Amino acid sequence: MSKTPVTVLGLGDMGTALARALLEGGHPTTVWNRTAAKAEALATEGALTAATAGEAVAASRLVVVCLLDYDSVRQVLSPLGEALAGRTVVNLTNGTPRQARDLAAWAAGHGAEYIDGGIMAVPPMIGTPAAFLLYSGSPAAFAAHRSVLDLFGESHHLGEDHGRAPLYDLALLSAMYGMFSGVLHAYALVRSDGVAAGDVAPLLGRWLTAMSGAVDGYAQRIDSGDHATGVVSTIAMQSAAFGNFTGSARDQGISPELIAPIGALMARRVAAGHGHEDLTGLVELLTA
Amino acid sequence: MSKTPVTVLGLGDMGTALARALLEGGHPTTVWNRTAAKAEALATEGALTAATAGEAVAASRLVVVCLLDYDSVRQVLSPLGEALAGRTVVNLTNGTPRQARDLAAWAAGHGAEYIDGGIMAVPPMIGTPAAFLLYSGSPAAFAAHRSVLDLFGESHHLGEDHGRAPLYDLALLSAMYGMFSGVLHAYALVRSDGVAAGDVAPLLGRWLTAMSGAVDGYAQRIDSGDHATGVVSTIAMQSAAFGNFTGSARDQGISPELIAPIGALMARRVAAGHGHEDLTGLVELLTA
Ligand SMILES: NC(=O)c1ccc[n+]([C@@H]2O[C@H](COP(=O)([O-])OP(=O)(O)OC[C@H]3O[C@@H](n4cnc5c(N)ncnc54)[C@H](OP(=O)(O)O)[C@@H]3O)[C@@H](O)[C@H]2O)c1
Ligand SMILES: NC(=O)c1ccc[n+]([C@@H]2O[C@H](COP(=O)([O-])OP(=O)(O)OC[C@H]3O[C@@H](n4cnc5c(N)ncnc54)[C@H](OP(=O)(O)O)[C@@H]3O)[C@@H](O)[C@H]2O)c1
Repeated sequence: MSKTPVTVLGLGDMGTALARALLEGGHPTTVWNRTAAKAEALATEGALTAATAGEAVAASRLVVVCLLDYDSVRQVLSPLGEALAGRTVVNLTNGTPRQARDLAAWAAGHGAEYIDGGIMAVPPMIGTPAAFLLYSGSPAAFAAHRSVLDLFGESHHLGEDHGRAPLYDLALLSAMYGMFSGVLHAYALVRSDGVAAGDVAPLLGRWLTAMSGAVDGYAQRIDSGDHATGVVSTIAMQSAAFGNFTGSARDQGISPELIAPIGALMARRVAAGHGHEDLTGLVELLTA
Repeated sequence: MSKTPVTVLGLGDMGTALARALLEGGHPTTVWNRTAAKAEALATEGALTAATAGEAVAASRLVVVCLLDYDSVRQVLSPLGEALAGRTVVNLTNGTPRQARDLAAWAAGHGAEYIDGGIMAVPPMIGTPAAFLLYSGSPAAFAAHRSVLDLFGESHHLGEDHGRAPLYDLALLSAMYGMFSGVLHAYALVRSDGVAAGDVAPLLGRWLTAMSGAVDGYAQRIDSGDHATGVVSTIAMQSAAFGNFTGSARDQGISPELIAPIGALMARRVAAGHGHEDLTGLVELLTA
C-alpha cells in the first residue's frame, strides 16, 4: 500500500529534520522553502521540490508547516486561501495559544482542517524515542494522521482546543529557559573563580535531574493551594540564603540578572507573612 | 571500638536531620540550639543536650555547624574563641566563597581546623543515597573525618581552597533556582488557561530531565569559547520565539518577570551579531 503524500513548508533546521523523517518513513514528500537552496540536500534524498508554496500544497492533502513564527506562517498561508480547502494543516511553528486559536479560525473559514503542534525536541532528536510532540485540534483529524506524525516522535494529543498544544509547549519551554538561565549563571559564576564549567557539569547534571523530581510535589501544592503543610525548606530559610547568590555574583564581578527575580519574589512573599511556607507560594504573586 | 563524639550546633530542619544521621550512625552526639525546645525530640532519641554552645563544643573534637547564615555562625562561634583550638569545625551553613575564606582565616587564627561544606539535599534526603555534600579545606582534616561525614550523604572533597565548596554549592543551587523559576512560571501559565499543574507535571518532569542533559555540551562550548560550531538551535531562532513567552504571559494576565531576563539577553546577543550562535554565548554578557 502506498504511503500518504506529505508536504512540508519551511526547511530551516527543524523543517529539514521533519522532512527527513517523512522520507525515511517512505512517504512521498514535497518540500518548499522561501530560500530554495535549502531544499537541495533533501532533493538528493528523494524529496520532491516545489517552486512555490501553492505548488507544494497542491501535492498533498497533509501539509506540515514549520516556519520561524506565526507572522511568517500567515505570510505563506494567506495567499493560498481556498487552495487549502479539504486539506489538513499541521502547524509545528512555535506560537501562543491565542495565535493558534486565531489561525484555526482562519483555516476553518477556508475549509481546512487545522492541528496545532509543539515540538519537544531539537532537530537531531526528531525520529528518535527522545522526541515528543504535543498536538491539539480535531481528534478525528489527529487520528487520521497519527501514524505519519508518530514518525517525528511520540505524539501527545491534548484536546480539541487548538490553544492547548502551544500552552503546554510554552510551559515546558519556559521551564527549560528557567533551567538554562540558572545553568548559564552557574557557569559564569564558577568561571569567574577560575573553575572550568566542565569540572562542575557532572554534579550539576546530577543535581538538576534530582531536583526536577520536585515538579510533582510543587504541582500538588499549587493545585491544592496548600503551601504550608510539611514544608522541609521554608521560604524564610531560602530567602535568607538568597543574598548569597546575588552577593557572590557581585563579589565575583558577574551580573545576577538571570537569577535575581526569584529572590525578589521570595523577599516579597516573606514580607507578606508567608515565611513558613514552601517556594510554590510564589505562583500567587505571578497571577496577582 | 567506640565511635567519635560529634557536636552539632543548630537544630533547624537541616541541623536536626544531620544530628539524627549521627545518632543512627552510633556516634555520641551533643546538640545545641539557640531555642532549646528544638533539642527535645533528639534528646529522646539519645542525643546529649548542652545548655550553651560552649558546653556543646567542649564535648567533641568534631563540631558540625548548621545555622541560618554566616552572621549567625559568627554570633555563635566568636565568643567561643580559644575553646575551638585543636578541634575541627565543619560548617555546613550556606554562604559565599568569600565568607568561607574569611571564616577559615578566623578559625586558623584560633587554632581550629576548618572545613567548609555545602549540602546538596533537603532534610529528608540526609542519610540516603540521593544526598551529596561538597567539602573544601584541609585534605588531611577531611580524610580524618570522612567516615563520619559520609553518614550525611555522598562526600565530595573539592580541594584545599575553602571557597570551593560554597562556589559549587551556589552554582548548583542557582541553576536549581533558575529551573524552579521556570517551573513556577510554567504552572502559573497553564493555571491561567484553566489547566491544572498536575496535568502538565509528568511531561514537564520528563522534559526537564531530558534537557538537563544539555549541561555537558554547554560546558564544552563555554570552556572552549566556541559558541558557533554545529549549532542546532540558533539564538536567532530562539530569540524570535521568545516573544511568545512574554506575549502569552501578558495575554493570560501573568507576570513574565521570572523568565524575562534570558529573553532580554538573547535579544542583546542577536543585536550584537551573534544570531547564528548557541545560547551559551549569553555567558559572555554576564561577565562583561
Ligand atoms: N531548532 C529547534 O531546536 C526547535 C525546537 C523546537 C521547535 N522549533 C520551532 O520550529 C520552528 C522552526 O525552527 P528552525 O530551527 O527550523 O528555525 P530556522 O532554522 O531559523 O528556520 C526558519 C525557517 O522559517 C523560514 N522563514 C522565516 N521567515 C519567513 C517568511 N517571512 N516567509 C517564509 N519563510 C520564512 C525560513 O526560510 P529561509 O530559509 O528563506 O530564511 C526557514 O525555513 C520555529 O517556530 C521554532 O521555534 C525549533
Ligand atoms: N532546609 C534545606 O532544605 C537546606 C538544604 C541545604 C542547605 N541548607 C542550609 O542549612 C542551613 C540551615 O537550614 P535550616 O533548613 O535548618 O534552617 P532553619 O530551619 O530556618 O533553622 C535555622 C537555624 O539557625 C538558627 N539561628 C538563626 N539565627 C541564629 C542566631 N543569630 N544565633 C543562633 N542561632 C541562630 C536557628 O535557631 P532558632 O531555632 O533559635 O531560631 C535554627 O537552628 C542554612 O544555611 C540553609 O541554607 C538547608
